[in-house]
Amino acid sequence: MWEDLVQTLQETTGLPVSRRDVERALGALKATEDLWENIRLSRVPLRVLVELWRVLQEKGLLRVEEGLALTEAGRALAQEAPLPGEAFCPACEGRGVLGARLPGRARERFLAWTQRRPPAIQDYDQGYVTPESTLARVALAWAWGDLEAKEILVLGDDDLTGLAAALTGLPKRVVVLDADPRIVRFLEEAARAEGLPLEAHVHDLREPLPETWVHAFHTFFTDPVEGPLGLQAFVGRGLLALKGEGCAGYVGLTHVEASLAKWAQFQRFLLENQAVITELRDGFHLYENWDYIPSMRAWPWLPVKRLPEKPWYTSALIRLELLGTPSLPNEPIQGDLQDEEATTY
Amino acid sequence: MWEDLVQTLQETTGLPVSRRDVERALGALKATEDLWENIRLSRVPLRVLVELWRVLQEKGLLRVEEGLALTEAGRALAQEAPLPGEAFCPACEGRGVLGARLPGRARERFLAWTQRRPPAIQDYDQGYVTPESTLARVALAWAWGDLEAKEILVLGDDDLTGLAAALTGLPKRVVVLDADPRIVRFLEEAARAEGLPLEAHVHDLREPLPETWVHAFHTFFTDPVEGPLGLQAFVGRGLLALKGEGCAGYVGLTHVEASLAKWAQFQRFLLENQAVITELRDGFHLYENWDYIPSMRAWPWLPVKRLPEKPWYTSALIRLELLGTPSLPNEPIQGDLQDEEATTY
Repeated sequence: MWEDLVQTLQETTGLPVSRRDVERALGALKATEDLWENIRLSRVPLRVLVELWRVLQEKGLLRVEEGLALTEAGRALAQEAPLPGEAFCPACEGRGVLGARLPGRARERFLAWTQRRPPAIQDYDQGYVTPESTLARVALAWAWGDLEAKEILVLGDDDLTGLAAALTGLPKRVVVLDADPRIVRFLEEAARAEGLPLEAHVHDLREPLPETWVHAFHTFFTDPVEGPLGLQAFVGRGLLALKGEGCAGYVGLTHVEASLAKWAQFQRFLLENQAVITELRDGFHLYENWDYIPSMRAWPWLPVKRLPEKPWYTSALIRLELLGTPSLPNEPIQGDLQDEEATTY
Repeated sequence: MWEDLVQTLQETTGLPVSRRDVERALGALKATEDLWENIRLSRVPLRVLVELWRVLQEKGLLRVEEGLALTEAGRALAQEAPLPGEAFCPACEGRGVLGARLPGRARERFLAWTQRRPPAIQDYDQGYVTPESTLARVALAWAWGDLEAKEILVLGDDDLTGLAAALTGLPKRVVVLDADPRIVRFLEEAARAEGLPLEAHVHDLREPLPETWVHAFHTFFTDPVEGPLGLQAFVGRGLLALKGEGCAGYVGLTHVEASLAKWAQFQRFLLENQAVITELRDGFHLYENWDYIPSMRAWPWLPVKRLPEKPWYTSALIRLELLGTPSLPNEPIQGDLQDEEATTY
């Protein structure tokens, strides 16, 4: 039915219209009857929106009087469309994002679980963001409609993004892949205790993605190892795991490990693979300091050998959205990803 | 001297290093002696930073003991490097940006001037963002070191970005181009009254950029008309006005007038022209409602004819940074930019 709408809109407007545009517009109609609020929340060109409203009205799905009210049939049509989350920071006119606004007491429950998380270890190049950063990342996904009723994949999850997402009660299903059995066991325990639709699997992302996870998800999250191979392993697999057009990915990227030349290379990779960048928020994530700082690769280079006293390692959050289905390989990746990260900037 | 450093670093590290990397790292050294804070504030790969510190120490420009202290000669070298601004919202761990943190009582003085601004009129497709949005935009530029000691160009300025930037006292020079003589006169009056290094000129961006403004600026701001020609006229001219590598541009982009397919097209245009995206914050700007809503092009399409009661029109803020000098035409642009915006999504 959404597909019919998409086709009608493409024909009557002659403009690019996606299933996701329809989904967003229906989600906004569930949230408010105010026309202007609908424009703000839909993130769809006005020209497309007005045509959608016209068609919905014609079909008896929308009642147009003082505002825009979905009829009972309209509500049924919109059932799968996520309500747009509003997790925006009131102190800065919504330019920031706050995990505290997530539904389901997700923040409180998440913070309790993080007290017992496995410590970051060097074997897996771990180092996790602050719990508030994880929650803010999930809150941004909520705001974009990437959580509710969605199937979500997390590729590498020492940040516990999968747990925070599942605790909101919004996703249909969350799958976490991680090379570290400690993380997998911890997530399995939390999922059991909280009764969450969250599963975790030990998986090395250098291996091909098992067929069952290819084109199976709406949303992925990953913090790639930042060499070219690492981006391929983490983000390439993430893109491959998406069902197609309108699906979204969240990727962390640093300055510490990546020059702006590498950022540009990564952005070209995204655009070549039918992904558009819809958010890039530098400094979005703060990292907790990790225990193995004195044995990390960079330690011998540092001119002052003092441990940090507050967070210093940050990363940007990128949200991409697919405009089509990219054609990506699903081959094994040879080589040491961390070695490569440390030598290519 | 910075050029020598860049060359040395490129040779000793074999990595991509720009003059702007050196500038950012020196700016951070002016702000703090703490090594970890330097990493956070520099936004330069660690591998490059440690090499820079080593070279500075070797040349007697940096004293390395408990922390990293610029010597007197080091301070002289770093004189032109902007201090990184810290305008981040404390309520959301710095994920948002607040104009209230700008120096020079810029916010208070700016808000006073906005009381007397010319109203938005349809002749120039005007419609301006809230004063707090303008201030936040300027605050983000401050945080990225794009204001202090910089020459700044604003292409179209009903948002009064040029005035807000100049009021911080940081830029060396601010030039505003606008087609509307009312805006130009208003800015000239404010510049005189406040003694600001701000000049404004009546200029139609469809015309070629006068030679005196080509490759003359470090930073530009623009809110383009969002058709392909508009992007060329506003952003193409902005890129052309930049001196080259390490210079930055700030661009507003909406969903109301532009599909994600158009966003992708614009991102490809940037990458093809040696610009990397370093920020893309959706919903960054809120627009004030304008008086001519009932006569705007979209009004007849709207199924409910009620005026909006709060801000509904938003736009994303994109920051780009040049990795080289793009080769762009400086030709006159034929056609009606607003007509084109209304017909291409």
